[in-house]
Formats: sequence, structure tokens, C-alpha cells
Amino acid sequence: MNIVLLCGGSGKRLWPLSNDVRSKQFIEVFPRQDGTYESMLQRICRQIKETDPNARILCATGKTQVSAIRNQVGDEVLVSAEPERRDTFPAIALAAAYLSEVREIEPKEPLIICPVDSYVGSGYYAAMKQMEQGIREGKANIILMAAKPQEPSTQYGYILCGGGKNTDCSPVSGFYEKPTEAEAAALIEKGAFWNCGVAALKLGYLLEAAHRITPFEDYQDLLSRYGSLKPVSFEKAVVEREKQIGAVRFSDPWKKLDTWGNLVDEMAEPNVGNVHLDGNCRGNHVINELDLPILCLGLENMIVSASPEGILVTEKSRSGELKSMVDALQGRQIMMADKSWGTFQVLDVQNESMTIRATLRAGQRMSYHSHERRDEVWTIVSGSGRTVVDGMEQPVQAGDVITMQAGCRHTIIADTELKIIEVQLGREISVHDKRKYELED
Amino acid sequence: MNIVLLCGGSGKRLWPLSNDVRSKQFIEVFPRQDGTYESMLQRICRQIKETDPNARILCATGKTQVSAIRNQVGDEVLVSAEPERRDTFPAIALAAAYLSEVREIEPKEPLIICPVDSYVGSGYYAAMKQMEQGIREGKANIILMAAKPQEPSTQYGYILCGGGKNTDCSPVSGFYEKPTEAEAAALIEKGAFWNCGVAALKLGYLLEAAHRITPFEDYQDLLSRYGSLKPVSFEKAVVEREKQIGAVRFSDPWKKLDTWGNLVDEMAEPNVGNVHLDGNCRGNHVINELDLPILCLGLENMIVSASPEGILVTEKSRSGELKSMVDALQGRQIMMADKSWGTFQVLDVQNESMTIRATLRAGQRMSYHSHERRDEVWTIVSGSGRTVVDGMEQPVQAGDVITMQAGCRHTIIADTELKIIEVQLGREISVHDKRKYELED
Repeated sequence: MNIVLLCGGSGKRLWPLSNDVRSKQFIEVFPRQDGTYESMLQRICRQIKETDPNARILCATGKTQVSAIRNQVGDEVLVSAEPERRDTFPAIALAAAYLSEVREIEPKEPLIICPVDSYVGSGYYAAMKQMEQGIREGKANIILMAAKPQEPSTQYGYILCGGGKNTDCSPVSGFYEKPTEAEAAALIEKGAFWNCGVAALKLGYLLEAAHRITPFEDYQDLLSRYGSLKPVSFEKAVVEREKQIGAVRFSDPWKKLDTWGNLVDEMAEPNVGNVHLDGNCRGNHVINELDLPILCLGLENMIVSASPEGILVTEKSRSGELKSMVDALQGRQIMMADKSWGTFQVLDVQNESMTIRATLRAGQRMSYHSHERRDEVWTIVSGSGRTVVDGMEQPVQAGDVITMQAGCRHTIIADTELKIIEVQLGREISVHDKRKYELED
Repeated sequence: MNIVLLCGGSGKRLWPLSNDVRSKQFIEVFPRQDGTYESMLQRICRQIKETDPNARILCATGKTQVSAIRNQVGDEVLVSAEPERRDTFPAIALAAAYLSEVREIEPKEPLIICPVDSYVGSGYYAAMKQMEQGIREGKANIILMAAKPQEPSTQYGYILCGGGKNTDCSPVSGFYEKPTEAEAAALIEKGAFWNCGVAALKLGYLLEAAHRITPFEDYQDLLSRYGSLKPVSFEKAVVEREKQIGAVRFSDPWKKLDTWGNLVDEMAEPNVGNVHLDGNCRGNHVINELDLPILCLGLENMIVSASPEGILVTEKSRSGELKSMVDALQGRQIMMADKSWGTFQVLDVQNESMTIRATLRAGQRMSYHSHERRDEVWTIVSGSGRTVVDGMEQPVQAGDVITMQAGCRHTIIADTELKIIEVQLGREISVHDKRKYELED
């Protein structure tokens, strides 16, 4: 199977564990059998590989999330990174161009497009195989996945299919976007299924659709035009224009992990981190990524979550309304992120300084770079490695202090895991004030 | 008036805004007329001075809280610091010895002993004056303050008084410690009053009582024996042994600010700091001292509070049960404190390092000191001043970095407000690893 995994979530619905650079798909909260935890991304990649060891997975994502993907699933996936956000279809078109040219996949090959935030069992992947087979056999131009509704949800789209109960691939006769609860109940009565947002189609078909939204010569050309593309969803650009649509139905439980309320139901433990609840607490989930303790007294059906980004306290049924509140925080400093070399966390922000803790994994290095408008001071607090400052390499270890004036080129290479406290000093501290250089060996 | 203000609270009941070194009396949450905020300590000192501009106030406190008192009320109060905690009576005895010897107050002079955590209006201070007058006139050996009960509280002690309604000072005929609600209602029916924990008596009388618990020659002698004293309350050591007790009654509202639930009722604004509530929140108080945002959805009658010490989420009526939960956190690193020179906040704790931000007020300086088992790195992030390192003074300003090996003597003097990031590096980082020296000019 060739799978395009839509991994470009905005990170607002599971704030504060997620942010613009660490989206919900990277949060490690689902229990593995060995007692460790995996993320949505890790879980879905594992499940796909269990179904089809030869599956080729391409993550369609934003450029700020590439490091997080590499950190979590290493090189077992391909990555297509959109330079800017443009809704699902441009992202899928870019992925299609990449698969076609860079990976030389034939136009006749089926692709499966699937979101990363479904929480599902193996029936979901069996349905994917059926969809792929249906496309190979020419049963329809697009085949969607349809799940048997568990309740009259107002959060999902519905599909009505023809063709009787035992058809492998039924023709779709109608779409209904997020209905009211009464409408949803009526649809279920009529035998409608949930639209899972999973689609199978041929790569060539997708490339034709891509050329409809913009002319482009090749992958590089599309990449360079990307910023000028109009945002448009896959549903609008492709599904709504097609008459020959089929659906593969399945009855296993299916749900989207797109709100805190949905997510916590799948967590093994209600409380994670330094959390203390008194005997009068009932039905809560408290997830704490801070070093500080959280004390809870007399809470019922609440979700409390804390990270370097902020603190959320919500009644469980209200968690779906979080996104608009997080929108209002827009423009705040990102407080934590995964980088190609490890992670960083902002510890302190003052008018003309910012203090961060950076942790580099053994064998990793930062880019060789300089800043125009800030000086930096590194204090190595654990581990050993090497710094290069204006071309001069020197070994460093815990206790060493390196000062770098604005303009000076610098990097640090971790021989063992390396923790540093970095104090940035200047008037206009910004992630954009960074120039990268090649490091000569 | 001579007032001994009992300022030695443990800081657990209003965690996380209070801790072992910043007790509840120092939290600035009560609105002043000019829009700024004052603490319990500032409020009570202001009220006393408004009632009696010549009042002499002595704060009986622990030695870790002296800096906070000086930072908040400057030199307008005297301070008697107990070297270790020994319950109220030893602290009061030490204060009495200090007033007698160091301040040369006559044994015949009345003292008022009063807790810092009463939230009261001017009637309370008028009652104090009456109590003082009663002691001068010899109406009783101890005169207590009695407040008209507002409800059958199970949290307060009750006093029954004789002598009719219009007596200035009534003889006390019975004490009842924290009764059940039914008992409390019956006591109120019989005309009982709340015991406010305020007592007037002669300094000489108090010194006699002090000599009963331990022989001592003078203030210095008592100070040096302090660690060997048995903890005992003022009620047990003094009030319970006396037959001639009077009470001054008053009917104004009186309450103790000893739980979050009591405190928030007196706060002007329900939300302080970076706090965002959705439209479904009702009757909450959210107090945020962190730089992180707090988002609340669908909360009712809750208290949320966050500081560098931790995060509290409690149903309002449960807040009285906080202390035992905070007890369970014992031994945690203190994350913020007031110092004689300013404030510090811990930003990061790793196995062999700790990073703090220290803010020195203009004109202040740290002690000249050294550490045996840690190196330190200071990065000045704003302001200007001077450092002295092993006797060498040099000017410093934003951007300067000073490294100090273990054993090296050092201090920093703030010419303007000075902010520094201090990275401590070593295996056994502890506040006790500190040796102080005289700094030669």
C-alpha cells in the first residue's frame, strides 16, 4: 500500500500538550504492551506496518513538524513538507507530485489518503486493503471508508450507500456534512455510515486534479509556487467533483481523537506526571508535563493539563470548545519544541533576554548558525561534546561556559546526551533572526 | 499600643501562592483604593497605624520570613525572629523578652497579641484600644477579643461571657474549642461569642509566664536556648492557667483568612494574571502568578491557583482540606522566595544543576559568600552594578558573564535593578552549602 498520512494538524485542540510545532499526533499517551507510551503517529505507523510490512507511508505535514516526525518514527516514513499551510488538497497534491517524481511511483498505482487522528483497530486497515483492491479493479474512481455509527454524532459527516449489505464496494448515493442530532438519528435510521475521511484513488487521477488547481511542471515547481495556492480541502477539490464514488463499509469502533474528551477515554491512566488528587475526586484526567506538582480537591469529570505552553482546566464535555480560546492566545512565544537534534524548552522570558534549556541527543548537532541581533551564553550542565565558534572547534563538558557575540557563527555537537542552558541577550529576540552556514570538516 | 503580631504561619493553607518562606500574610491580593494590592501584613499594619499612629508593632516570626516582612513593611515594624518553630507561646515569650530588654518597655505596659490573618474593619481596632484600657485599669489579668458569630462555624473557638450586654469588659465564664455545628448553634443561642485569638495583658505578666516554661537570664540567653524549648500554645501556657479573664465584645464582621475559600471572598477581582475563562464559567477564582496562560472551560465554584511552587485546582468548599495534601509534598525544593536583596525564582532543576533568576532591588546586595560544592555562572540580563569575586570588584551590566568556581567568595551589588540568570553546577546543590564573609570596603 501507498499511504499519504495527513499529519499537518494545528495543535490547538489538545493545547497545552500540543502547540504550533508539536501537534496532537506527537503526544505520547497511548499505552504500549511493554508499559511505554506511543503517540497517534507511532500507533498508526505501527498498525499499518503490522497489516502490510511493505506499506510505503508518506507523511504530508508542515515544515515545522518534520523534526518531530523524524524523532518519533525515524526513517521508516517519507516526508512531504508544505512550506506554508494551505488546507488539505494542496498538501495532498504536493505529496502526489513527490511520490510520482522523486519516488517514481506509477500513475496507475492506488494511493490511500488517511488522517493521522483516527483511533481504530485492525478492521480499519483491512478496509484500507479492500479500498486499494477496489481501485485496482476499477470499481470506482474514488473509494471512501465508511464506519458504522456508534451514536448520532453531530461532529462527523455521513454517507449513504447503495448496493445491498454484502457488497465489497458500494456506490455512494449521498453526503451529509455534520447534521443536527435529530438529522443524524434519521440518517442512521436510513442506514447511513460515518465518513472516516479516508480515500483511495489512483496517483494519476490525483495528479490530474492537482493540475486543475494550478499549472506546474514538476515537484520543485509546485513547491516554489506553493505560497500562491488558494487553500482548498480535498473534499471540495476532488470528492465533490466526482460522480463515480464507492465506499467500503466496516463495523468496528472508529473515532477521531480530535478533542481532549475523546483523547482521554483512550489513555491507560487517568493521571500522568506529578499529580495528587484527594479522595473526593471522581472521573478526572490530569496530565502534567511540568516539573511542578498539581493538587486537585473535589473535582468531578474534569480535565486538567499543564505543559510549558500553559494550563488547561475544563469540564470534560466542554473540551471541544477549546480551539477558539487557543486561537485567542495567538502570537505567544512557542515554549517547547522538538528539533532535529533534540528538544528545547523556554525557561524564562524577560524584556531583553530569553533563557532556554536545550537537550541534544548523543551524536546530534545544531546547524552552524549566527544571529544578528542577539548575543548568547551557553552553560553546559551535563554531558560532553564539542563547540565550533567562528571556525574554532573545542571540546566541552559540564561546567563549561561559551559566550557568543551577535554575528559570531556557532554550533554544538553532542558526543553524549548534552544539556545546555542558553541565555539569549538582545532587544529583538526572534526565531527568525538566524543565518545558517555550511560547516567545513 | 504595643502590638505583637503573630506572623509565623506555615504557608500550607494557601499553597501554591504561599510556601515555607513566603507565607499567606505576604500575598498581595487585597485591593487598595489606588488600584494596587496589599497583603494581609500590609493591610493590618496600615489599619493599626490609622487607629493609633504611635502604635509599636512587633512581628513575631520565623527567621526565613524576616526578609519578606522588611520588603513589605520596611522599618515601620520591629521584628523578633524565632530560630526554629516552637508554636505560639515560645515565639510570644521571645517577643516579650525583646520588648522588655532591647526596647526597654516597662513591665506594667499592656501588650496586645494578635494574629496576622484576621480580615476585619475598624471596630476590631477600637476593641483593641478598649482591651488595652481594661488592662491598664486592672479589670482582668488577660482580656480577650470576642466577635459576634455570623454563623454556627465549626472552625472557631467560642467564649461565654457574663456581666450583661453593656459591659465594656465582661468576665469570661467558659471556653469551647471548635464544636460541632449543633453545639455551635446551641452556644450561639446561649449568647456565646467567637474567640478571635486576640489577647491583651501586661508585659510583666507575660515575662513571668515565660520564666515558668524555662529559666533564662535575658533575651540573648532565651534566644540561645530556643531550640530546646517544648512547643506549646499561648492558650495552653497562659490562658488556661488564668482565672481572671475578661472579654471585650464587638459585633462587626470578623473572619480568619486561613483557607482559600475564605480568602477569595475578599479579593476584588475573581481573576488575577494571565487567565482566560469561557462563557460557561460561573463563580470561580483563578489566580495565576506564572507567565503561562490558564484556560478554563465550563468551571463552576472552583479555585485555580498557579505559582512557581505548583498548581492547585479545588472545588471551593473543599479548600480547607488543602493542608494535609501540601504536607505530603514536604521536602520539595522551594521555588520562589523573598530575600533581603530582592527575589529569586527557580527556573530549572536537573540532576547536577539548578538555574534560577534573581532580581536585586536598586541599592541592594547579596551577602559576600562562597559554596563548597558548586560552581556558579551569572549572566546579567538587565541593569548594572558591581560584582566582587575573591576581593576583586568590577562593574557589570547586561550581557556580562561571571563564572565562580566552588570555594570562591563572591557577591553582587545592584546599582540599578539588576536581573541575573544564575546556573548552579554540582552534585549536591543545597541552600545550606553557603559560607558568609565580611566584605571589606
